Amino acid sequence: MSNTLPQGFRTAGVSCGIKSAEDTLDLALFESAEACVAAGVFTQNVVCGAPVKVSRSRVPSRSVRAIVINSGNANACTGERGDDDARRMTSLVADELGCSEADVLVCSTGVIGHFLPMEKISTGITRVAKELDQTPESFLAAARGMMTTDTFPKQAKREVVLAGRTVRVSGAAKGAAMIAPNMATMLAVIMTDAALEPDDTDAMLHHAVDDSFNCISVEGHTSTSDTVILMANGAASAGPLDDDAKQSVQSMVDEVCEELAQAIIRDAEGADHFIAIEVRGLKSRDDAHRIAKVVADSPLVKTAITGADPNWGRIVSAVGYSGVELRESDISLRISGTLLYASGSPVDYDEQAVSESIKASRDVLIELDFPLGDAGVRFWTSDLTSEYVRLNSEYTT
Amino acid sequence: MSNTLPQGFRTAGVSCGIKSAEDTLDLALFESAEACVAAGVFTQNVVCGAPVKVSRSRVPSRSVRAIVINSGNANACTGERGDDDARRMTSLVADELGCSEADVLVCSTGVIGHFLPMEKISTGITRVAKELDQTPESFLAAARGMMTTDTFPKQAKREVVLAGRTVRVSGAAKGAAMIAPNMATMLAVIMTDAALEPDDTDAMLHHAVDDSFNCISVEGHTSTSDTVILMANGAASAGPLDDDAKQSVQSMVDEVCEELAQAIIRDAEGADHFIAIEVRGLKSRDDAHRIAKVVADSPLVKTAITGADPNWGRIVSAVGYSGVELRESDISLRISGTLLYASGSPVDYDEQAVSESIKASRDVLIELDFPLGDAGVRFWTSDLTSEYVRLNSEYTT
Repeated sequence: MSNTLPQGFRTAGVSCGIKSAEDTLDLALFESAEACVAAGVFTQNVVCGAPVKVSRSRVPSRSVRAIVINSGNANACTGERGDDDARRMTSLVADELGCSEADVLVCSTGVIGHFLPMEKISTGITRVAKELDQTPESFLAAARGMMTTDTFPKQAKREVVLAGRTVRVSGAAKGAAMIAPNMATMLAVIMTDAALEPDDTDAMLHHAVDDSFNCISVEGHTSTSDTVILMANGAASAGPLDDDAKQSVQSMVDEVCEELAQAIIRDAEGADHFIAIEVRGLKSRDDAHRIAKVVADSPLVKTAITGADPNWGRIVSAVGYSGVELRESDISLRISGTLLYASGSPVDYDEQAVSESIKASRDVLIELDFPLGDAGVRFWTSDLTSEYVRLNSEYTT
Repeated sequence: MSNTLPQGFRTAGVSCGIKSAEDTLDLALFESAEACVAAGVFTQNVVCGAPVKVSRSRVPSRSVRAIVINSGNANACTGERGDDDARRMTSLVADELGCSEADVLVCSTGVIGHFLPMEKISTGITRVAKELDQTPESFLAAARGMMTTDTFPKQAKREVVLAGRTVRVSGAAKGAAMIAPNMATMLAVIMTDAALEPDDTDAMLHHAVDDSFNCISVEGHTSTSDTVILMANGAASAGPLDDDAKQSVQSMVDEVCEELAQAIIRDAEGADHFIAIEVRGLKSRDDAHRIAKVVADSPLVKTAITGADPNWGRIVSAVGYSGVELRESDISLRISGTLLYASGSPVDYDEQAVSESIKASRDVLIELDFPLGDAGVRFWTSDLTSEYVRLNSEYTT
């Protein structure tokens, strides 16, 4: 299935010379023919890039027309000049589209601490606006234009028929890959032709992000530029959606965000394993999330998986320092389906078989069950390899 | 200067066959001829080893006679049988010393999830009690007997003359080194012949631990067995200490703990660099500690140092997600004496020179200054190397 865009959206990606490799796409534009309802979720880091400050001040909105993204240079830690450059990118796009600067959002990703090459970007924006199109190829170009050290473009789409009309949700993301001196940055743009109000859009995006981009971690380092935007232009709707229809759109947004979030982890630097962590039976989702994150971020858990070692001790002890109120006897653990630890005690199991199954498959499932309530979470992370260390410590002056 | 023990203390270390390598010391005993005042600080992990439960229930105390430590097998995650074994170790020691079981403390470190070989330990306790001595060699044997993957024994001592009598503080520790399926465990025993009350001993130990063992991190994984014990037998004092004398003892305990904590980081697995992080100018020590820990635990910061990369962006962005209320413009950063980032802006500096200086020295100093208050902290960590990953992912079934 090709990655068709929702109705009324056009995209493009061009190479404008920010990245040193010739012809590498480094500028992406996502556009809606009509004014969109848009909402955003941004990094919690108090040190944030200029584009985050600009975009955050412009959503939620009823009148967004476009998002422009450059890769190869993050426009973070660049002071007032960086703020001016971020706004300038939006005004250049606004000139091309004939809209207000305030109706354009902006993201940057790449090396930090360097000013943007605004001449290249200015020429690039003129070109990328001319190439806007509705084809799968133009969507792929936009997805590629936002990549940094990603090894593959990340796209997802869902569609459903509501009141006789096809409603689509399509998204593109770039992932958490960090080569010195780049930053870990996660960007995603989600587009839908459903008709949504700003409040709904905001709530819908937060709901989806909570269970997707907020449930992934490569090494727990929060970027200065993380941004997820949802644009809804209503092109596929005759009028406002009823609650059932909204729920259908929510499900699609959730699924698109989850697919993109998983794709980011599948592309994590140097990773040998994709680790899904399912935590169930806690009093609150917050408790479950805290446990999942502490397990996901433990280098000892990660290296155990790298070594195909079903090391329940590292996982159980990570649970123990999560800060969640629980007793050792509340913890049960399965790795890839095999019970290793039940209600606080190690269980006899075939250690070699579990190790072999970790070795044989890129996907590993860690299940943690508690008897404390009904809340749970699913979380995704990668293992920690020598290749990760090599990629992130490679530096030559 | 040999590592003389404080008066009235004897120690010993023997090989009782827990560790597979022949003649490797794996059982240590620290004893005081007279009943001691003792206090302890234990892991915060809710999943904790049986010896932690037993020892924690017995301090603060006025009547501790000994601490017995076995290495090679952690007696953690071993259920009720593990609890019985931990108590049994203390009763075996009590029989040898002719004291009450309640006056003996116990620690275990090593592989988790396996029952202790109690026959070997029982024979070993008889032998180690016979070897108790006051010589530097016996202290070294005890320090070696508590080692797991440590590459060198860790000892420190201080002495001062108070009211005409020499008062000593001596300590031994084992460090945070983790080879699958071992756990990260930090143990330390501090002995003094000063005369202290239980409350003072407890307060003094917490003060020292806050600025030493609580200011180190290899990878942020809290062990199930961490234990630090301070024993004070009063053998060098004619009577209770006055406030000045107490302050002198506090300083010695502080210094011994700091030296042992730093030794643990210097022995961190696979590390190429010893990183000191000094954070100053915060509203509270908690804020400073949170910033230091988040920088210390960031794999991106660690790998940058491994690669001799003065990557201020990774450090500044880690500060930004520490959760401490601050603005980007509050952050100033020096690496090994060179200013890289001042009040929220990158500074021109000789990147190659800083990189060369990181390459040339095992010690790296990261200084973070803020204009928000007078509180600060010093913190120590290690870098993250491919060797660390190799050591912690090595596993063969």
